[in-house]
Amino acid sequence: MVVPVTTTRDAARGTDSQTDPGPVAPAARMTPSQYGVGARFTLSVYDSDYVRIILDALAAADQAGLTIETNDISTFVGGPEQRVLDFLREVIAGAAGSGAHLSAAILLSRGCPGELACELPAGVAALGAAPVELAATGVRARAHWSLYPLLDGGATGDHMGPIYAAIEDARAAGVVAGSDHFATRLDGDLATVLATAANGWIGVGALVQHVTTHLTVSVNSPSEITE
Amino acid sequence: MVVPVTTTRDAARGTDSQTDPGPVAPAARMTPSQYGVGARFTLSVYDSDYVRIILDALAAADQAGLTIETNDISTFVGGPEQRVLDFLREVIAGAAGSGAHLSAAILLSRGCPGELACELPAGVAALGAAPVELAATGVRARAHWSLYPLLDGGATGDHMGPIYAAIEDARAAGVVAGSDHFATRLDGDLATVLATAANGWIGVGALVQHVTTHLTVSVNSPSEITE
Repeated sequence: MVVPVTTTRDAARGTDSQTDPGPVAPAARMTPSQYGVGARFTLSVYDSDYVRIILDALAAADQAGLTIETNDISTFVGGPEQRVLDFLREVIAGAAGSGAHLSAAILLSRGCPGELACELPAGVAALGAAPVELAATGVRARAHWSLYPLLDGGATGDHMGPIYAAIEDARAAGVVAGSDHFATRLDGDLATVLATAANGWIGVGALVQHVTTHLTVSVNSPSEITE
Repeated sequence: MVVPVTTTRDAARGTDSQTDPGPVAPAARMTPSQYGVGARFTLSVYDSDYVRIILDALAAADQAGLTIETNDISTFVGGPEQRVLDFLREVIAGAAGSGAHLSAAILLSRGCPGELACELPAGVAALGAAPVELAATGVRARAHWSLYPLLDGGATGDHMGPIYAAIEDARAAGVVAGSDHFATRLDGDLATVLATAANGWIGVGALVQHVTTHLTVSVNSPSEITE
């Protein structure tokens, strides 16, 4: 289920302007929390019994090692990349087990901890991570995926290069089902879809400090509103 | 209901590296479609009668002048900024009239037309637009909002400057209710919330070619899952 970081990444590396760690290079010793690694997601269940379905799925998922904060709009999940994705996989697969149609709007972010401001010292090195590995769920998911490397200035920066490289990686994993306006369409096991988006984000994160990715995942969609 | 582009924008202008139109400057003559102005959104209704509620809301909204494409994951809306936002306001307010709890995951994008690749010539000037004006709906909305100016290289680029400026504009409009990890919390009439996010995106779009913004809007949330 791993989406490998392939050599297409090397093409992007040459165009990035933020790989020089500069005078400050403590990133390798930062915890995921200090580096601002985490997710914010809204799980929407198209069923009048949604409260029970959502609360049951959240309660059944393993929260070990994670910071979880749920409010009226979304749920924040902070922690190491593998644990954050494990949790998303468990919650969404758990809710999907109800049979209800659901969608999950997921934001993954790294390199910009804090709330209003990025509370990192200037010049901190970009901090990558090992790709996540997620066990198959048996749940088919379709998703629209967007990846945002948030470059600052630099002589040769090109924000689209890392995006194209990540899409090529996803294509190699067989999960890309096309591209619509503003998003790449993924289709596969929920675990593959989540791992593809996460590993694109992690891979670009080795080159660019502040990287976010957004994913809208649809599960159990009825034919009535399917194209 | 207009969120004005205030002088805080001027502070960001000084830090941006993409204002020089360079040798290619046809942007002022581009149509919104040519420039890739549009939205992609997923409307989730937490009710077993969701198909009727969503289809009724889509059918009742004025589609004049817009390109609308609905598939199994989300709906694309292409057209001028004012018309795109009018449509989002009508669809969400219409569905909210059912009384059902709903959330809308909205992506607005500009400056990167096409599907997989940005089909603009290199060096095209950033293309702003007039702020949108949306009539009040009487529907209270709470949202998490993120804004992404996708800078390329440049000597003095700073992607956070335009974000902070847009948040200051929103604060001046009285719709900012705080900041959570990775997102600014907005709370107000649905029209104010949508206009705030859209006008932040439009304002930064005058400085940076490729700008996206993501907004997760929650309406009719029950107290059971409110913080």
